[in-house]
Amino acid sequence: MDPILLTPLGLLHTPYLDPVGMPIQAVGAVGVPGWIELAPEYAAGLHDLAAFEFLILLYRLHRQARVSLTVTPFLDDQPHGVFATRAPQRPNALGLSIVRLVCIDGLRIDIEDVDMLDGTPLLDIKPYVPAFDVRVTERIGWYAGKINQVYQARADERFTK
Amino acid sequence: MDPILLTPLGLLHTPYLDPVGMPIQAVGAVGVPGWIELAPEYAAGLHDLAAFEFLILLYRLHRQARVSLTVTPFLDDQPHGVFATRAPQRPNALGLSIVRLVCIDGLRIDIEDVDMLDGTPLLDIKPYVPAFDVRVTERIGWYAGKINQVYQARADERFTK
Repeated sequence: MDPILLTPLGLLHTPYLDPVGMPIQAVGAVGVPGWIELAPEYAAGLHDLAAFEFLILLYRLHRQARVSLTVTPFLDDQPHGVFATRAPQRPNALGLSIVRLVCIDGLRIDIEDVDMLDGTPLLDIKPYVPAFDVRVTERIGWYAGKINQVYQARADERFTK
Repeated sequence: MDPILLTPLGLLHTPYLDPVGMPIQAVGAVGVPGWIELAPEYAAGLHDLAAFEFLILLYRLHRQARVSLTVTPFLDDQPHGVFATRAPQRPNALGLSIVRLVCIDGLRIDIEDVDMLDGTPLLDIKPYVPAFDVRVTERIGWYAGKINQVYQARADERFTK
C-alpha cells in the first residue's frame, strides 16, 4: 500500500516538556490548560467551531522513540497487543485526545484537559458530538478494574527509549 | 513544519463501493457488516483486542476529491468551517469511526457499523473505553436540532468532485 503524506495544521502547546510525569489520558488532565497554534492557511476552517464544548484532536506522537506491537501500558503490569491499548508506541504514532474548548482568538485556540507534549504536531480538529461519539459498553478488556488509576497515573520513561 | 509519512496497516472492507448513498456516521450504519484486512506484520498488535466491544478506527478518506475549509455538510444547508464539521473534505483527510467488534480470526477482524468506503486504508485501531472517550455536553453548535437526521441521512455527490 502506498504511504500517506500528512501536513501538520499547527502545533499544540502544553505544560509538558518531557514525557515523564505527564497525565496518560485527557481525563487525567482535567483543567490543565494548553493552546493550539493553527497555521494561518487553515483559519477559515474554524468558523462556527466556538459553539462546541469539546474537540477531538488527532495528532502525531512525535517523541515516540519506537514502535512496539506488544506493550506493557501504564495502567497494567502485563503485556498487551498495542492495538488493545492506548499506548504511544503504536504504528503510525497517531494520538487522539478529547479536550475542552475554552475560546478561540484568531489562530489561537485555548483548550483544557491536555495530555500531550508541548510542540506536538496537530493533524485534525473534529467537533465532539455525543450522538456520534458516545458508546455504552462494559466490555473494556484488560482495562476492567484499572480505570480508577487513570486519574492519578503519570507517564514514566518506558516509551521514551 | 515537516510532513509526516504514514503507512496503512491494512484495508477496510465494506459494502460501500461509491460515496453516494453511504451512511454519514457509524451511528447511521448500525449492524452494517464490514471487516478489516490487517497486514501480516501487525498481527502481534491484536493480542487481547477481542475482549473489547467497540474500536476507534482512524483511516484515510482516500476518495476525498479536494480539501475545502468551508463546507456545507450533509446535515445542514448552511456552510461551516470544516473543523466545525465531520465532513470528509478536511485537511489531511483523516476519518474516525467507532465500530462494533464482532470477532477476530487471524488477520481478519469482523466489525459492524461501518460508514467508510470499501478499500479505505486503515491507519490505527484503538480500543474504545467509555471512561476515556465519553463526554457529556449539550454544546454541539450547529448540530443542535439536526442529530435525528443522521440515522437516515445518506451521502450525496457533494464531496466527490
